[in-house]
Formats: sequence, C-alpha cells, structure tokens
Amino acid sequence: MQDEIGRTAAAGSETGRVEAFSDGVFAIAITLLVLDLKVPREIADGHLTEELLHLWPSYLAFLASFLTIGVMWINHHRLFTLIKRCDHTLLILNGLLLFGVTVVPFPTGLVAGFLGRPDARVAAVVYNGTFVLLAVFFNVLWRHASHNNRLFAPDADRDVIRGITRQYMFGPLYYLVACALALVSVPASLGFNILLAFFFALPGVRLPERRPG
Amino acid sequence: MQDEIGRTAAAGSETGRVEAFSDGVFAIAITLLVLDLKVPREIADGHLTEELLHLWPSYLAFLASFLTIGVMWINHHRLFTLIKRCDHTLLILNGLLLFGVTVVPFPTGLVAGFLGRPDARVAAVVYNGTFVLLAVFFNVLWRHASHNNRLFAPDADRDVIRGITRQYMFGPLYYLVACALALVSVPASLGFNILLAFFFALPGVRLPERRPG
Amino acid sequence: MQDEIGRTAAAGSETGRVEAFSDGVFAIAITLLVLDLKVPREIADGHLTEELLHLWPSYLAFLASFLTIGVMWINHHRLFTLIKRCDHTLLILNGLLLFGVTVVPFPTGLVAGFLGRPDARVAAVVYNGTFVLLAVFFNVLWRHASHNNRLFAPDADRDVIRGITRQYMFGPLYYLVACALALVSVPASLGFNILLAFFFALPGVRLPERRPG
Amino acid sequence: MQDEIGRTAAAGSETGRVEAFSDGVFAIAITLLVLDLKVPREIADGHLTEELLHLWPSYLAFLASFLTIGVMWINHHRLFTLIKRCDHTLLILNGLLLFGVTVVPFPTGLVAGFLGRPDARVAAVVYNGTFVLLAVFFNVLWRHASHNNRLFAPDADRDVIRGITRQYMFGPLYYLVACALALVSVPASLGFNILLAFFFALPGVRLPERRPG
Repeated sequence: MQDEIGRTAAAGSETGRVEAFSDGVFAIAITLLVLDLKVPREIADGHLTEELLHLWPSYLAFLASFLTIGVMWINHHRLFTLIKRCDHTLLILNGLLLFGVTVVPFPTGLVAGFLGRPDARVAAVVYNGTFVLLAVFFNVLWRHASHNNRLFAPDADRDVIRGITRQYMFGPLYYLVACALALVSVPASLGFNILLAFFFALPGVRLPERRPG
Repeated sequence: MQDEIGRTAAAGSETGRVEAFSDGVFAIAITLLVLDLKVPREIADGHLTEELLHLWPSYLAFLASFLTIGVMWINHHRLFTLIKRCDHTLLILNGLLLFGVTVVPFPTGLVAGFLGRPDARVAAVVYNGTFVLLAVFFNVLWRHASHNNRLFAPDADRDVIRGITRQYMFGPLYYLVACALALVSVPASLGFNILLAFFFALPGVRLPERRPG
Repeated sequence: MQDEIGRTAAAGSETGRVEAFSDGVFAIAITLLVLDLKVPREIADGHLTEELLHLWPSYLAFLASFLTIGVMWINHHRLFTLIKRCDHTLLILNGLLLFGVTVVPFPTGLVAGFLGRPDARVAAVVYNGTFVLLAVFFNVLWRHASHNNRLFAPDADRDVIRGITRQYMFGPLYYLVACALALVSVPASLGFNILLAFFFALPGVRLPERRPG
Repeated sequence: MQDEIGRTAAAGSETGRVEAFSDGVFAIAITLLVLDLKVPREIADGHLTEELLHLWPSYLAFLASFLTIGVMWINHHRLFTLIKRCDHTLLILNGLLLFGVTVVPFPTGLVAGFLGRPDARVAAVVYNGTFVLLAVFFNVLWRHASHNNRLFAPDADRDVIRGITRQYMFGPLYYLVACALALVSVPASLGFNILLAFFFALPGVRLPERRPG
C-alpha cells in the first residue's frame, strides 16, 4: 500500500494530490454558497432596497457557512502541514470529511429559506447536525494520523500536535450545544456558530517559544 | 509527440498538469451533486421535517454518486502514481474518462427525481449505464498505459500493476449486473452501487511484502 | 515587469500559477456544461424514456461543447509546454482566452434550447461566433508568445512551433465556415464542430524524428 | 505559529497552498458568473435575436464583473510574487478577501436583473459597495504583509512594493466614486468600473531599469 500510494511525486510530497483535490472541493463548496443568495425577481418598482433587506436570513446563513467552511479549510491546511505520509485509510477518512463539506450548501439553503418562519428550528438543527458530523470526521482523521505519530513528519512539533488534539476533542460537543441552542433560539445558535468559527480559526496552542524561521 | 508534451515541468512531472486538470473536474463534479438536493419551497408551516424525510431518494442518489465519484478519484490517483509518462493518446483517453465524470450529476438527478415512482427503473438503468461506460473508459486508459509498461516509471511495482488489471477487468461486468438488478429492484441496485464503491476503494492487491518507505 | 512577475516560484516555473488558474477555469467551465442537461420534471408516468430521447439537442450541444473546451485545454497545455516565461501581456491575453471559455456554457444552453425549433440558426450562429472569437484569442496569445520566441524556453522545438503556427492560422476561418454552415443546416454545423475538435486535438506537426526521452 | 504553518512544503513554498486555494476560489467565482446569463425560455418563434439583444444588461454586468475579478486575480498573483512567508493573520485576511470575491456573482445578478429599470441605482450602489469592501480588504492584506516587510522575500524589489502601496491606497476611494456615479448614471458607473479594471491591471510602477531574467 505505502509503496503504491507513496509515490505521488506530483507536488513533491506524498500528500500533494490529496491536498490539491481537497482544496478544490473546499474552494467549490465555499463558492457555491453564493447560489443561495437569490436575486429578487418580479418585485414592484422602487422596492429593491426593501427586498434586499428582507434577505437577511440568507446573508446570515451565507456568513456563518462561509466562516465555517473557511475555518475548516484553515484547519485542513494546518493538519497537512503536520501530516506528511499518506495511507489508504487517510484517503478514505479525508473523503468522509469532504463528503461533509460538499453537503454544507444544502443545510445553508435550509436556514436561509426558513429563518424567521415556524420551521426555523428544524432547519437550524439540521444545519448544526451537519457540523457535529464534520467535527466528528475531523477528530477521526486526526486520531488516525496522530496514532503513534503514524503519518507525521519525523520533526513534527509535539506541542502543536497536543494543542490540536486538545482543541478538536470537544468540537463535536460544541456543535451539539449549538444544536441544543437552536431549539431555544435560532439566531443565538447562528451567533454561536460564528463564535465557534473564530475559536477554530485560532491555532490550537500558543507556542512557548519561537524558533527562527 | 513525446518531446512536445513531455516537457510539462509545471509540477515537476510529465503528468502534473493532467492530474491537476483531472483533480479539478473530479472535485467540481462531486461538489455539484449537492445542487440536486433541493431546499423544499412553498410548504405548509410545521411540515419541514416531513418534507425533508420525503427527500430520501435525493439523499440516496447523492450518497451513491458521491461514493462512486470519490472512489473513481482514488483510482485515478492510484493509476497516476504508476503512470509517469504522458503521450497524446493518454490525454484523449483521460478526456474520455472526464467526460463520463462530468455527466454523472445528470443521471444522479434522474434517480433522485424518479426513485419511488413508476419510471424509477428507467432512471436507474441510465444511471448504471453511465457507470458501465466509465468502467470501460477506465479499462481502456489502463490498457493503453500498461501495454508493454508504456507509460510507467521504470521502478513501478509489477504486483500492483497486475492487481489493478485483475480488479478492473470485471468492472464493466459488475456495473452491467447493477443495470440488470435495476430492472428487478431499484433500491437493491443502488445498494449494489454502494458496495461496488467499497470494492473499488480497496487496493487491487495485497502486497506480499512491505518495502521500506 | 519581468522581475515583478517572474518570481512565481510556487510551482517551480514562471507560468505555474497562470497554468493552475487556467486549469481551474477550464475544469469548471467544462463541468458546468452538465447544468444544461435538465432532469425532466412533471411528466406523465411511464414517459421518461420518451422524454429522455427528446433531450437529444441537449446531448448534442453538451458533446460538441465538451469536446471543444476539452481540446482547447489540450491546446492550452500544449502551448504552455513551450511557453516558459511570463509577461504582463501574456496575463492579459490569457485572461481574454479564459473570458471566452467561461462564456461557452451560455451559447451551449442556447443551442440545447433551440435546436429543432425555428430559431436554431440564430443559436448556432451565436455558438460558432463564440468559437470564432476563441480561435482569434488563441492566435493572438500564440503570436505574442512566439514573436521572436519571446516567451519560449531556449530549447523549444522549432518544428513544433512552426506546426502550431500553421495549424492555428486558419482556426478563425474554420469556425467562420461553421457559422456559415449553420445558416444552411444546424446539425451539419454541429457535426463540423465535432470534426474541428478532432482536428485541433491532433498535434500540429508530425515530428520527423523522435529523440530519446 | 510560524513553525506550525511554515512547513507547507506541498508546492515548494510557504504560501503554495494558500495560492492554490485562492486560485480555486477566483476561478470558480469568475466561471459562475455565466450562470447569470439566462437562456431565454418560452419566447415566440423567430424572436431569439431580439431577446438576445434585450439581454444587454446581463452582458454588461458579466463583462464588468469578469474584468474586475480577473484583475483582482492578477493583483493577487502579483502580491504573492512578493509575499513569501505565511502567518496566521495572512490566512485570515486572505479569507476576508476571498469572502468578497465569492460574493461578487450576487451583486452582478442584481445589476443584470435591474439595469434599465427604476431600481438600477440601488443595484449599482450595492455592486460598487462590494468593490469598495474588496479594495479595503486588498489594502489591509497588503499593509499586513508589507509592514516592516514582514512577509516578503529578502530580495523583494523595493520599487515594486512602493508602487503597489501607492496604487492601492486610493482604491477604496475610486470605488466610492463609482458608487456616487451610480446615483447619477448607472451605465457611466459601469463604464468607470471597466476603466478601473484596466487601471488595476497595469503594474503599479514602471521599473526604472530592467535586470536580466
């Protein structure tokens, strides 16, 4: 196996093509979100400003999903600065992660379509349920890679690795909280989503010291 | 010819840009599948959960197509760890393969739209017919590359090559079986599709021994 | 200028990122074509086969456009095995070319929508008019690059260069012929489009001799 | 931090994967613009030419947005020939920039839908407002990177850097002017947009001397 897959020299690294394919999927999923911002049609003259303001649920859903996918990309990028070997299981687990990413535009459209309506809670629970799954997939991939440092470069920073493990561990729990929050207040749960994006945008650990370049 | 094409140094390999373009097409096709998950519109208040459950044919079609395209990407990746030279015929055959990949969202939409309705069989036959074609295209590309080891790196693993040849040989037949199965039971044929994805996700051969990295 | 742009070491080549961006645009444009294959909706039970057969104009337009964009990608790839330096004009001319490529799904949709209807000729003229423009853009880019071998690697093959110049020279004319043909017979003009794709898929010159590797 | 992110050797450079992801987003956003060119449906026979001419607002909006996104890509490319180190803030600021880029198809659709109608001004103000934001994001990213030459290669050309700083400084102001112009005449403001694209396509500085390759 290792032999078979290990020779992806395309980008000078075992994981080069996995990263390229993943970048493509992240980039497309994040850009397709705009298709949920629907240009108002058949409106009375002079009411465009009003109609655009009425689209606020779409803007909010777009923002929360853009931030979440963007931060997932930053985290994927961060993991693959540590992961330098590729095995078959990594391909499968990465595929699972990308499955979750490609799905995101659908629950985003749900939230955009139902925010401010009686079914908003259902939409927000489905939305955050998707993120619970994604947080689980991130953990599984990370655990596979970090088990006995299986797929890391020999010189990978132990502090960084421990920091990421600690940060990811509670990810699924945080998004379960967002799910529960959606049952009480949908706007609050979307706000919490945006907060979580900022939390996961932060690196998992403050390095105790900086080494030269 | 070789001279003309052989100098794609862009990614440090003759096949670098072919892989990059293919990665793009696979990534986009797999991400466009989500556009077939339609957000329910104009439904009565309080019926969103119900409407979402009614969308199960879309979820099943999405899942089967995601797995199939994903596994085709893994196989494309696997082939190009062996294929290290590029000739004009390879460009054409790879184009044929990508043609099949870009088409997939259309039969996926058919299955999503007609599952559980009288025309489901027609949809599932068209769906599996696309995969028969794709399996044929994979075989043709592989045969061109492996004929006299034409396009392989000198040190490509013979066992791996033989394993892939054996695994691919019956691919078109398996999807013909899925086609036939669709005439009897559409859900069974989709289940078989998912099974086939797992089969082709497996590497074609267990290596008798592991060599150091 | 040269200094400013010349340092794109990202992919180990001056033109690396231009190629990557172009690959992305080609890959997306070719994959978006599938969105013009519309899944039939609201049809009577048992009529799906019939409805799918009625979609033949969509399939034909999809095929002709896929082949044309695919072959344009092969040609772009071929040019950038020779073009190894990047200047500002190349960025602009390449942008012009990509402009044409991103437009293609629109006239493709026109042909798919109007083939077999009285307005088919208008659609086919617009369709081939797009390709006339694209052929002009390819010529302009090629002339800029090949003028005094401005942007070529020092060891670029003269025969290959002359062959491409000869092959491209009449490109706009061929597509003007396809335009004219559309006024007489739309299916004939689409057939001619497919023929032209095969013509431009061929390398521009038979090399008189093969050199090792 | 530097340690954590700095090891993206995937493309032989610290910024390789950031550029690859950004290229993906730019390429997809620019190609999705074509989805706003709607094929006319349900028109009377023989009126296609007329209907196509009536779509001029869509063509104009497509052209202005294509040029603007294209030129933003050229500028992104230009910045990353200078930026050779990557820190966490750069990832965030680049994400902000990409946020703006992915949004563009929405205001483009607004302009295409409302040009020539009473609400055209609102659409054009929103359209240019997006570009004001994008110009601000470009400035912020550039200031972060150029502060004490934080992220530049040691041999980055000082003249080029000063030229870019000078060119970008007034970017937000220019697009505010386009906003104001939209209140007077929408076509004039779109024309100004196209002019601005050409302005930002120009390199920021004429180099006083050319150094060998």
